[in-house]
Amino acid sequence: MERVTLLAGGVGGARLAHGLDLALRPPSHEPVTASTDLTAPGSEPVAAPGSAEARHPLTVVVNVGDDTELHGLWISPDIDTVLYTLAGLNDEERGWGLRGESYATLGQLARLGEDTWFTLGDKDLATHIARTARLRSGTPLSTVTSQIAESLGVRPRVVPVTDDRLATMVDTPSGRLGFQEYFVGHQHADEVLGLHFEGAEATRPAPGVIDALRDAELVLLAPSNPFLSIDPVLAVPGVRDALAGTAARRVAVSPIVGGAAIKGPAAKILESLGHEVSALGVARLYTGLVDVMCIDERDSHLSGPVADLGFEVLVTDTIMGGPEGRARLAHELLGTRA
Amino acid sequence: MERVTLLAGGVGGARLAHGLDLALRPPSHEPVTASTDLTAPGSEPVAAPGSAEARHPLTVVVNVGDDTELHGLWISPDIDTVLYTLAGLNDEERGWGLRGESYATLGQLARLGEDTWFTLGDKDLATHIARTARLRSGTPLSTVTSQIAESLGVRPRVVPVTDDRLATMVDTPSGRLGFQEYFVGHQHADEVLGLHFEGAEATRPAPGVIDALRDAELVLLAPSNPFLSIDPVLAVPGVRDALAGTAARRVAVSPIVGGAAIKGPAAKILESLGHEVSALGVARLYTGLVDVMCIDERDSHLSGPVADLGFEVLVTDTIMGGPEGRARLAHELLGTRA
Repeated sequence: MERVTLLAGGVGGARLAHGLDLALRPPSHEPVTASTDLTAPGSEPVAAPGSAEARHPLTVVVNVGDDTELHGLWISPDIDTVLYTLAGLNDEERGWGLRGESYATLGQLARLGEDTWFTLGDKDLATHIARTARLRSGTPLSTVTSQIAESLGVRPRVVPVTDDRLATMVDTPSGRLGFQEYFVGHQHADEVLGLHFEGAEATRPAPGVIDALRDAELVLLAPSNPFLSIDPVLAVPGVRDALAGTAARRVAVSPIVGGAAIKGPAAKILESLGHEVSALGVARLYTGLVDVMCIDERDSHLSGPVADLGFEVLVTDTIMGGPEGRARLAHELLGTRA
Repeated sequence: MERVTLLAGGVGGARLAHGLDLALRPPSHEPVTASTDLTAPGSEPVAAPGSAEARHPLTVVVNVGDDTELHGLWISPDIDTVLYTLAGLNDEERGWGLRGESYATLGQLARLGEDTWFTLGDKDLATHIARTARLRSGTPLSTVTSQIAESLGVRPRVVPVTDDRLATMVDTPSGRLGFQEYFVGHQHADEVLGLHFEGAEATRPAPGVIDALRDAELVLLAPSNPFLSIDPVLAVPGVRDALAGTAARRVAVSPIVGGAAIKGPAAKILESLGHEVSALGVARLYTGLVDVMCIDERDSHLSGPVADLGFEVLVTDTIMGGPEGRARLAHELLGTRA
């Protein structure tokens, strides 16, 4: 099976990762490799501990620009959204966090005078507590992410783009805001005048990131926010060059459908930064970065102008409602390798 | 109202602190001070923020030798037991933690492969998260403790004996154990060959501790474990001297009643360290430290031998069942000032 690498932010990246995991999954009655002894009869094949990288064809490289510290805990929202979604534990309706959460700790934190504008569920807090403890003991974020992925039964490799600190800062009319302050605190209502990836120049790609781009047969840019999710991934020195230099087929999925963002502030930011709010506007941002632009069938009238920019164009239904829709889109994207 | 200082460990200290808080509380229809404007009509007088020290006659100096770090969070079990009990939030039946707890975070921590031998409830975790974040930002433990006390509506001043690190280590036939490893991990089943308060010599008393001993009219040693709760308090340089030099009346309450400990391993430790397991054995440990030994009425036959050691002896019911029993014992102890 070919190697696929997905550059991802939060929800859009997580959903496509889920689709790819489903699409790349062998039929459950067929063992993945020779290690059938690890597989209980009748159950789905389970990867041996530590062997997931060697096995699963999908690597998801995740944005860390949204990461933040709250109550002394290190929160990696995009990594968690990807992990929770791949583990089937995510809250689909809300788009973030775990299903069936309770909020006893947060309520008590409020009572103790902590600022609780950022909602953290009890189970979700376990992720942040464990991650923070392991980071503080010197374990890199990429290793902690692998550990959590394995504990949650996630099969694809999920890797932060960097183990170093990179903070997305948002310039607004009221000043420069930290990402979560802009996104959650201000409910992404501010006009965005510019973006800055603080510390990016000093970061190094996490182990495996460059290899995952170089050795892939297909590299996908998820339908994530180009400015808030994809740009900070590309801001890590070496990543943009690896994407430029890979022999892999490179495909980007537009997060803008019918002139609006599927989720989040992508449309608003495109507009305030002077770009056309359309799949064509997104395509212009990705010129020279990818070979294929995947746009939604609702935007089929844009396939000509997008092709004129030098892209091959894949027109399909890009709205990933449920697992079937995700797997179908993934199958179509995998088909662009041909 | 006279100033009272209580040296305390966990449950026994917390219960006596609660009794003293009740006994020292003015009738609820009488304002404590001139600040009646802060008191809603018909409600109990509420201390103005930050004024608790100036107001409440009770200071509880708490052992920190049991403190430990778990999942990167700083746990201060004795402080929390005292705070939760004084706030009326403690789980009476279990003797530790908060009433009505849930364990969603702990369950998820276990799923993530964290070692969860130490039970932490969701609401309790908020205390540890907030404390750890504030400690890491440079706030001393005594300040954090005051903040949490105020948030929980605790009226007496609760102060850790030191802001510095002091770790009770327990020598057992299977080697030296950290306190929580001995107490919770091994369920205090090991024979105790000796105790060591790691780092004690380098600690300094927390702000207010020495003053609370010097300026008190009554200093009480709670019916806490002499070795595990009182000794580590006295191991902080300056505390033993302040207790020796105070003009206050000094009264210790025996944690041994009828040859057994009310709770915990006090009897077992007395025995394995070669002491008599009785109120007399405890009195011998406190010779020269206090003026009055308070022993249980079940041990009235020991009042002669205890008096022979040079103590005044108060014989009463020392089992603090409910709030009434606690307040009654507190009243009797307050009466020893005469």
